[in-house]
Amino acid sequence: MVAKYYDLVVIGGGPAGEKGAAQVAYFGKSVAIVESGEHFGGASANTGTIPAKTLRETSLVLSGTKARRLFGVDLTLGNATNVEQFLYQERKVKEAERDRIDRNITHHGIDTYRGVGSLVDAHTVRVEVNGSGEETVEIHAEIVLLCTGSSPRHPGEYPFHDPRVYDSDTILSLTQMPRRMVVIGGGVIGTEYACTFATLGAEVTVIDRKELLLGFLDHEIARSLMGRMRGNGISIHCDGVAKCEANDDVVALTLSSGSQLECDALLVCAGRTSNVERLNLGVAGVETGARGLIKVDDNYRTTAPNIYAVGDVIGFPALASTSMEQARFAMVNAFKLGYKQSVIPVLPYGVYSIPEVSMAGATEEELRERGVDYIAGRAYYRDHPRGMIMGEGEGFLKLLFSFEDLQLLGVHVIGEQATELVHVGLMALMMEAHGQLFIRACFNYPTLGDLYKYATYDAMGKRQQRITS
Amino acid sequence: MVAKYYDLVVIGGGPAGEKGAAQVAYFGKSVAIVESGEHFGGASANTGTIPAKTLRETSLVLSGTKARRLFGVDLTLGNATNVEQFLYQERKVKEAERDRIDRNITHHGIDTYRGVGSLVDAHTVRVEVNGSGEETVEIHAEIVLLCTGSSPRHPGEYPFHDPRVYDSDTILSLTQMPRRMVVIGGGVIGTEYACTFATLGAEVTVIDRKELLLGFLDHEIARSLMGRMRGNGISIHCDGVAKCEANDDVVALTLSSGSQLECDALLVCAGRTSNVERLNLGVAGVETGARGLIKVDDNYRTTAPNIYAVGDVIGFPALASTSMEQARFAMVNAFKLGYKQSVIPVLPYGVYSIPEVSMAGATEEELRERGVDYIAGRAYYRDHPRGMIMGEGEGFLKLLFSFEDLQLLGVHVIGEQATELVHVGLMALMMEAHGQLFIRACFNYPTLGDLYKYATYDAMGKRQQRITS
Repeated sequence: MVAKYYDLVVIGGGPAGEKGAAQVAYFGKSVAIVESGEHFGGASANTGTIPAKTLRETSLVLSGTKARRLFGVDLTLGNATNVEQFLYQERKVKEAERDRIDRNITHHGIDTYRGVGSLVDAHTVRVEVNGSGEETVEIHAEIVLLCTGSSPRHPGEYPFHDPRVYDSDTILSLTQMPRRMVVIGGGVIGTEYACTFATLGAEVTVIDRKELLLGFLDHEIARSLMGRMRGNGISIHCDGVAKCEANDDVVALTLSSGSQLECDALLVCAGRTSNVERLNLGVAGVETGARGLIKVDDNYRTTAPNIYAVGDVIGFPALASTSMEQARFAMVNAFKLGYKQSVIPVLPYGVYSIPEVSMAGATEEELRERGVDYIAGRAYYRDHPRGMIMGEGEGFLKLLFSFEDLQLLGVHVIGEQATELVHVGLMALMMEAHGQLFIRACFNYPTLGDLYKYATYDAMGKRQQRITS
Repeated sequence: MVAKYYDLVVIGGGPAGEKGAAQVAYFGKSVAIVESGEHFGGASANTGTIPAKTLRETSLVLSGTKARRLFGVDLTLGNATNVEQFLYQERKVKEAERDRIDRNITHHGIDTYRGVGSLVDAHTVRVEVNGSGEETVEIHAEIVLLCTGSSPRHPGEYPFHDPRVYDSDTILSLTQMPRRMVVIGGGVIGTEYACTFATLGAEVTVIDRKELLLGFLDHEIARSLMGRMRGNGISIHCDGVAKCEANDDVVALTLSSGSQLECDALLVCAGRTSNVERLNLGVAGVETGARGLIKVDDNYRTTAPNIYAVGDVIGFPALASTSMEQARFAMVNAFKLGYKQSVIPVLPYGVYSIPEVSMAGATEEELRERGVDYIAGRAYYRDHPRGMIMGEGEGFLKLLFSFEDLQLLGVHVIGEQATELVHVGLMALMMEAHGQLFIRACFNYPTLGDLYKYATYDAMGKRQQRITS
């Protein structure tokens, strides 16, 4: 076995690994990616981000929700919504995304190793070649990038051996459409699937110990989302689970409050665990902290100077978008690529619930805590022709400005297209713009972009009231 | 009759009139709007912008185009697509928009006069009260804002008395769904309706004397749109019309080339004429120029110092979006409102064709003409998961940067959501940003916003190639 030398060895071929590897290869370095799964793309392409978003769109079209909103007519396939149809587009998109990643890796001349990667020392990676029994390969690396992602946590109280008990990976292999679904955990993943299955007509209950779901969002938006979810027929219980039993007929839950619940599908979204156990971090001096997360500095460098870690293995926010940026940023620093030196200034968050929610910058809660004097302006989808055309009445855009000089501090959207619409404000936040930017701007008509102007007018009006009162 | 005095009298209650009036009233001035039509909202709410966009969305849903793209299944109402269903949402949105405008006018305490307004002198407006026979009212104005809009031009060769011959106003009163439609004029309006009716299954032919439709767009985008339209079954003929006859059976056209065409609906979109003939401009010293358009300076002031004109009556671009901005801008200057002094820097253009097209900033043709050394970067919908999820394969984003320092110069999009997506680049253009902004940005995933990053990488790569080659 001849050991091969690389400028960069990436362990984990998800979105962070792909982007980090491609960027370094683009600048002429030799790069290898080690991937233990059957496909590149990680949870993003295969089990999480992309599949979940595809199913979300599918549910909206298949359920006829959009058509009903627009015409009062039912264009659905009725009760014929079966699992095959539901998953058709999900599989198509997933395959296309896998193809795209394979092409990208080939295009950049990146070597690939299929197997479980672990550290032998800070500059050596061992790969247990998939399906080979005991064959291993050792490769040498100037720099190592760790991005092995995370896996759904399996709390002991749930009978995961039962085919009706799912985690966020296995939910995609469901074989029949559930009628009653209970979702444990109202975080991002739990909320997204709850919305999708409720839209398809399942009776969905979400159980979470927290009173307010998605508490990292601006609370007004989080509360509005909970209201919209309830309006879509989702029950939300602030409660814990005392007992869970899979019987012949149903999966039965006893809640901490004593309430009883039954369902034919249980989806457990009780957090995720960093995939670090097979990395053999200790031999290279890579330290982990709370909940097994790899410790990194502002440049995503671990406690081993030539080893970087990004994405889910380092924890929050653990989104595909931020993980890719972390990887690019880490590699620019590791290889002194020079063209992207400053820190990532503002990270947007998107939740593909129904309706979508997205934010960038500060929440009202954060500004109050920091003692910043701010003013909020709101504009509602229902007051704009584009919102009416979409049939999306209840969405709104909320902008937070400094009271003093109307500098933009936060952008919050709930409503369809929220994850796209937030980017207009993201650009403004990154450029440290003031309300004047939106006042001066001319937006296409009729578009949701226009809401930025009206939310700014609203803030200016409120500011004027406060000054004159 | 007691003449009333106002700080501002607006003639024409379309989008420009509404926004100009509301803004001035917001700052405590006395304002009146004169409107000759049955409803406020002008062509935007009643016959043009909003109704056309609503019908566009309706056609996409009713035809099942979206569902077919996503699942290969047919969720349409089959041949039952009738005019009632087609127009249901259009009427609903139109009424909601009229209500919104009425509320806005009331909320701002604006007086309304229903009738035809004309100038008596630079400070006096006469209103011939609607339905009153001969009653007139005269009101006095410190400032007058003219925004009476435009009307479809009716070239003599078309038999508009025939119920099968439509202009862009009357098309909304059609009583049965056409099977074969000919559209005269492939400008914005003609193109939009051609796409909508083709999507609903009509056999559509567009006749235009120009080889390239929508030549104000970047030509690569305009050509791409023509390709997509042809792909959707639309025939586009570069030709003129020599003769048009409405027979018992069909409307028959003889083209300049000698070709013959027959249809059961003819839509004439042969430009629009400024509504100035009833304004009595001469008495106040307001001059008109080419094609009857009112002449204005950079502040939208006419040749009469206290009279301003905005919107369609002054010509290109004659979009609701730009007209509203012109009105706000003109009034800030007229009343020294102070808060919005600089010139509008970049106007986006949006075409609600299928697919949508939008742009902001310079085209490649413009940059070449100006001798600017530039570099183009492209990113394709099909290479991004969001494009795949939407089933929108062929769209793309094209960014134009200065070669020297990668300053953003132009943003061009073809594909669904183009009119929204362009706003991310619009913000960057307004702030005179460079490619670095998109490289540094983290966009939600999967969103179309991400295309900005990939188009920038593409431009940077091409730039590098040119430097090293």
